[in-house]
Amino acid sequence: MSDKNEIIRSAAAQVAENYRKSDILMYGDALRLPSRTAVIEIIRDFQKILFPAYYGDRDLLKLPPEQYSALLMGHVYDKLLRQLELVMPEGEEGARRAEEVCEAMMERLPHIQELLLKDLTANYNGDPAASSRQEIILSYPGMFAIFIYRIAHELYLEKVPMIPRIMTEYAHSQTGIDINPGATIGEYFSIDHGTGVVVGETTVIGDRVQLYQGVTLGAMSPAGMHHSAETPARRHPKIGSDVTIYAGATLLGGATEVGDNVVIGGNAFLTESVESDTKVSIKKPEMTFRVKGGRF
Amino acid sequence: MSDKNEIIRSAAAQVAENYRKSDILMYGDALRLPSRTAVIEIIRDFQKILFPAYYGDRDLLKLPPEQYSALLMGHVYDKLLRQLELVMPEGEEGARRAEEVCEAMMERLPHIQELLLKDLTANYNGDPAASSRQEIILSYPGMFAIFIYRIAHELYLEKVPMIPRIMTEYAHSQTGIDINPGATIGEYFSIDHGTGVVVGETTVIGDRVQLYQGVTLGAMSPAGMHHSAETPARRHPKIGSDVTIYAGATLLGGATEVGDNVVIGGNAFLTESVESDTKVSIKKPEMTFRVKGGRF
Amino acid sequence: MSDKNEIIRSAAAQVAENYRKSDILMYGDALRLPSRTAVIEIIRDFQKILFPAYYGDRDLLKLPPEQYSALLMGHVYDKLLRQLELVMPEGEEGARRAEEVCEAMMERLPHIQELLLKDLTANYNGDPAASSRQEIILSYPGMFAIFIYRIAHELYLEKVPMIPRIMTEYAHSQTGIDINPGATIGEYFSIDHGTGVVVGETTVIGDRVQLYQGVTLGAMSPAGMHHSAETPARRHPKIGSDVTIYAGATLLGGATEVGDNVVIGGNAFLTESVESDTKVSIKKPEMTFRVKGGRF
Repeated sequence: MSDKNEIIRSAAAQVAENYRKSDILMYGDALRLPSRTAVIEIIRDFQKILFPAYYGDRDLLKLPPEQYSALLMGHVYDKLLRQLELVMPEGEEGARRAEEVCEAMMERLPHIQELLLKDLTANYNGDPAASSRQEIILSYPGMFAIFIYRIAHELYLEKVPMIPRIMTEYAHSQTGIDINPGATIGEYFSIDHGTGVVVGETTVIGDRVQLYQGVTLGAMSPAGMHHSAETPARRHPKIGSDVTIYAGATLLGGATEVGDNVVIGGNAFLTESVESDTKVSIKKPEMTFRVKGGRF
Repeated sequence: MSDKNEIIRSAAAQVAENYRKSDILMYGDALRLPSRTAVIEIIRDFQKILFPAYYGDRDLLKLPPEQYSALLMGHVYDKLLRQLELVMPEGEEGARRAEEVCEAMMERLPHIQELLLKDLTANYNGDPAASSRQEIILSYPGMFAIFIYRIAHELYLEKVPMIPRIMTEYAHSQTGIDINPGATIGEYFSIDHGTGVVVGETTVIGDRVQLYQGVTLGAMSPAGMHHSAETPARRHPKIGSDVTIYAGATLLGGATEVGDNVVIGGNAFLTESVESDTKVSIKKPEMTFRVKGGRF
Repeated sequence: MSDKNEIIRSAAAQVAENYRKSDILMYGDALRLPSRTAVIEIIRDFQKILFPAYYGDRDLLKLPPEQYSALLMGHVYDKLLRQLELVMPEGEEGARRAEEVCEAMMERLPHIQELLLKDLTANYNGDPAASSRQEIILSYPGMFAIFIYRIAHELYLEKVPMIPRIMTEYAHSQTGIDINPGATIGEYFSIDHGTGVVVGETTVIGDRVQLYQGVTLGAMSPAGMHHSAETPARRHPKIGSDVTIYAGATLLGGATEVGDNVVIGGNAFLTESVESDTKVSIKKPEMTFRVKGGRF
């Protein structure tokens, strides 16, 4: 037992020394960092406001709808304010900024809700296996990832640090869909299955676009990229309206622009632009069929 | 502060107006919708019944096994009944139907358990990295996704709305494996790694089939597909028995039928049928090797 | 109602009979099996020790850092010991071994922490979208998967059964990144996006290696593989130092060795070795562009 204590004492001292040596802040009780748990709770609260019948508390749903939504918006306002204060510069200016962002979010909420109802329609129309829009709200990962993206994107536009990415990475962990909060995405957006989808920070997507699992809208190569406070140049593709991109397709680079009314086939690999009214497909790979017994 | 309240009051009124304008039910305390949380609890209860030593409560495991399983089946029966009543038509007929489905599920449980013990054997035999079947029950995502699928599929066969999909989407979120509850899957089914696997609603799979990560058994293209109350035509592949499908292979369309005793190589892309006793492989892609310094 | 009870009684008897017939232990209150929940708690405790400002309890963070880390290491020691005792052979020898492993883990913790701070730097430098290293600790799935791998790998080296895999499968479920605890991975390891990454049990990876989403470092084919108590021969690739592997690349087999200073392009498929200072790319697939109206 004294062994155990001695070992722990010595290792703990080294661990504490590592806290000190690190060039980012590792230890302290007054650190200004958002809480992942609190951010997830905020997301769940927004879900209750935007889809009350599906995620709301049965007892609260006895209130008149205006009262219900005002009550929950009051709660989420306070929670969000606390997290925003932790990522804004300390002092009066930061506190004022946090309040401004909270107010802006509340003002935007009806618009976000309208966008999500359009996304819901698109996700329903795009999937023959869906039996109702209710089922989509309750169970579709694409809908969940889009919901979180639309919230996180508003915070990104307000230049809020860290919190938008914590939100979209929560969606990523729940759905396998990785939409950077910086992406700009139009109306009636839908994602089917979704595992492995990557939509990069500077991607621009038009209206009525549908993505399938494993689609990457990525950067060409990070070579020569630098962290910068400036608004970054577009390093990810721009997609027009009325575009369907099938499973596993990869589109890379800021110079890759896809027009309107385009279909991109499964496993396509594109680093060049596509004109409007085009169907792009990969040459079907040659398959070899051998009677078993031969070497595979 | 009055700013805040005024902003919330105004936004809440618009949000409530959006509830009203939506053409699906968005608000109300008497809505008949299943609870995702309750459905997940039901899955966890089934896990305790089917794999008691691994997931059961230590104290309850002191009971004789018959008593243990009867006790937990009683609990899960009641929980499932409550959720089924919420998705069945209101009234006596719906209530009777909910009870029938619960009874059918309990009667099927020993058979589901037998299937899962066979799946367990298949998952163990298929992975040289597995050190024991215990490890597979406790940690393998493929086993977990198959377990949920086998429960959800029984409910799908009973034409239960929404709940089967909530179940398999829970598996999807936990494992990256997306098996539609409508798929028909034989004995000794195994999935290794599994992230990105998609098995569509009308897929038919024989016995002793093994899938690797990223395998898609999908529809050719949703074009021309419609939501319908009818039993859908098969739009997904049919796979025979004794088939292995390696990572990243894509098989699409209801006309794609794979015979028995077939191996399909990694990244294969198939929209045509494969005879029995065949090995299918994609032509190895040409790779370019350049000494660095040249442009990549 | 008596129907319900009769059905449950009969099904429960069959379920209990299945427990008995199974050739692995399925039922009993004295089973020696680790608890997945407890193992996840242990991971969360390690996170609090290694990244206190980000995951620690605000109140505990008022302690001096040595006291904080010693306190938490004491807790995690006890929890880990309990789980280790459940997977070691019963009796004195097993108990002693469990204690040894706990002590070794505590002694290794400062070193693991140093590795993770290097990984953090690599993950930051590798992603132009990252705005700070704080953001990476709080939200990046790659960092989370690497953290869990580094803990699990130490337990794997101590030949601890089951627990290392429960740990990495937890990471897999949270991130879509599947790193086998047996893999050997050098310093400054980074993974971007990450969904679908598979790193097999006998993979060897050098320093400063970066992987993107969907990269597989896998076995050639499990044919002929057997479960064995022996140290397995390498069946997965060996990767040198200063190597970048882009999204969707697949490297298979123990004979596949990649040198230092190599870039492997997206979707590459390699079953052969690559010399140092090489850029490997797949021949760009031929794409067909058709004006719409033609058949897709």
